[in-house]
Amino acid sequence: MINLLCGKIKKLGAPVVVGLDPMLSYVPEHVVKKSLSEYGETLEGAADAIWQFNKEIVDCIYDLIPAVKPQIAMYEQFGVEGLKVYQKTVDYCHEKGLIVIGDVKRGDIGSTSAAYAAGHLGKVQVGSKFLRGFNEDFATVNPYLGTDGVKPFIDVCREEKKGIFILVKTSNPSSGEFQDRLISGRPLYEWVGEQVAAWGETCMGDAYSYVGAVVGATYPEMGKALRKLMPKALILVPGYGAQGGKAEDLVHYFNEDGLGAIVNSSRGIIAAYKKEPYAKFGAEHFGEASRQAVIDMIQDIGGALKGK
Amino acid sequence: MINLLCGKIKKLGAPVVVGLDPMLSYVPEHVVKKSLSEYGETLEGAADAIWQFNKEIVDCIYDLIPAVKPQIAMYEQFGVEGLKVYQKTVDYCHEKGLIVIGDVKRGDIGSTSAAYAAGHLGKVQVGSKFLRGFNEDFATVNPYLGTDGVKPFIDVCREEKKGIFILVKTSNPSSGEFQDRLISGRPLYEWVGEQVAAWGETCMGDAYSYVGAVVGATYPEMGKALRKLMPKALILVPGYGAQGGKAEDLVHYFNEDGLGAIVNSSRGIIAAYKKEPYAKFGAEHFGEASRQAVIDMIQDIGGALKGK
Repeated sequence: MINLLCGKIKKLGAPVVVGLDPMLSYVPEHVVKKSLSEYGETLEGAADAIWQFNKEIVDCIYDLIPAVKPQIAMYEQFGVEGLKVYQKTVDYCHEKGLIVIGDVKRGDIGSTSAAYAAGHLGKVQVGSKFLRGFNEDFATVNPYLGTDGVKPFIDVCREEKKGIFILVKTSNPSSGEFQDRLISGRPLYEWVGEQVAAWGETCMGDAYSYVGAVVGATYPEMGKALRKLMPKALILVPGYGAQGGKAEDLVHYFNEDGLGAIVNSSRGIIAAYKKEPYAKFGAEHFGEASRQAVIDMIQDIGGALKGK
Repeated sequence: MINLLCGKIKKLGAPVVVGLDPMLSYVPEHVVKKSLSEYGETLEGAADAIWQFNKEIVDCIYDLIPAVKPQIAMYEQFGVEGLKVYQKTVDYCHEKGLIVIGDVKRGDIGSTSAAYAAGHLGKVQVGSKFLRGFNEDFATVNPYLGTDGVKPFIDVCREEKKGIFILVKTSNPSSGEFQDRLISGRPLYEWVGEQVAAWGETCMGDAYSYVGAVVGATYPEMGKALRKLMPKALILVPGYGAQGGKAEDLVHYFNEDGLGAIVNSSRGIIAAYKKEPYAKFGAEHFGEASRQAVIDMIQDIGGALKGK
């Protein structure tokens, strides 16, 4: 799957992933109204609105990008009804040929991480059958519990030829509170990064490892250091656009081969119709606004990479 | 809710929480067989087996304990069908008067944590209505992303009078890999613990804070230090029993008032019928075996606390 992802990035010239993180407030009024009139003001109604929204956006952008990254929290907030739509979204994106990165940030003690890994990337045995739960292609993983919390994910990745992205340095303002603390003269995120590189060695695709890293676009100097520390990790970069990360900052996350990173934008794409310069599309054509925002994002990053 | 939890612990003399973490392999064969014959070898069948198992155990133990702690991973491994049973379990435990600690270990950047907090502890707005998703009473939270990842949970706790337990020092063998690393001479878990105490000050119940901590039973010396560092945090202690933690080690997690900690056992209770001295109950009476195991656990911990 890591080879497929790298191949698709190269073929499309698009080291870009779109975050399908639909807040209900991003969904145009006419879509919400239609769903709520059908299902009432219920969790089912809210989930349906999000599903209709996702479907339209995916239909408008699937040919431009290698992958999508649904943030499961945005579905989980609507309970079981939301998670049904998460599943529906994963399946639909697969139908459209997209790679799906489940942004689930799971991580627990060994046996529990094994259950998460089975449910999101692998299979569970039920009687004589092996069945799949959510079936994403990649998942994000929290490293706070150490190796025995991460290893079950790696084991499943090896078996399924799927991948994970481990949180190394996150994009949020207070990520430094613990992640930047110095341990023997080096910040914690570097120690985690070193561990990601070591875990990754055990689980290599052709050029990149099944074990990637999350490093926020909002900390480019740290991204530069981490790029060197984890040369074979594909870096998933959140924080571009709405969170403040700029294309010229992102070049440091890439290797000399022009690969090695995939940049996420969520709000900037899926809620593009709400902001200049895409407001002209109007709420009725929110999908086309998203398409234009994706095209612009690919150009923006491509331009910065050419100037590297 | 923290006052209610402390009150129930005192009234029952049971600083004990049962982890409803049902691996399919814990469920007696006759239960699995019945569910799979009804639903086939499907995720629905597996989820039904787990539901029947949970229900019987809850029916047998609900009067002995203040709270249960379902580990959501064990449900999530069966995808949406598993999560339906998670929801059913939360609701059923509420019906039986139990407090529910959702062991979800969520944590993300601000807006995403807000979605998790809404879905598990709070409400989401749909049209003119405010609706609840999973509706647990407490949730466990991962602190790796820092304050802005935790604050949305605290905000919801304040509004809903619910609570969280933040991972400080986990019970697994490799928890030390990052958590024990020295930062300015003190391990990371102490820095996190100090932050838990500070967060907790902003959100106090009568004697204990809405913001508690997870500290594994397998590291009693660290538990002792953390007890002092976070005097007003209720400590959720996993790792007793099957993972190796002993009652005499647990006394350090309690305050002088005999309160301040709640000890979890999962496998040791729910799969009690599989092991001595409870095997005599037989697989048919697995619920009674669990009941006896709870009674013994309460006595074991009570005895150790008396000797403190």
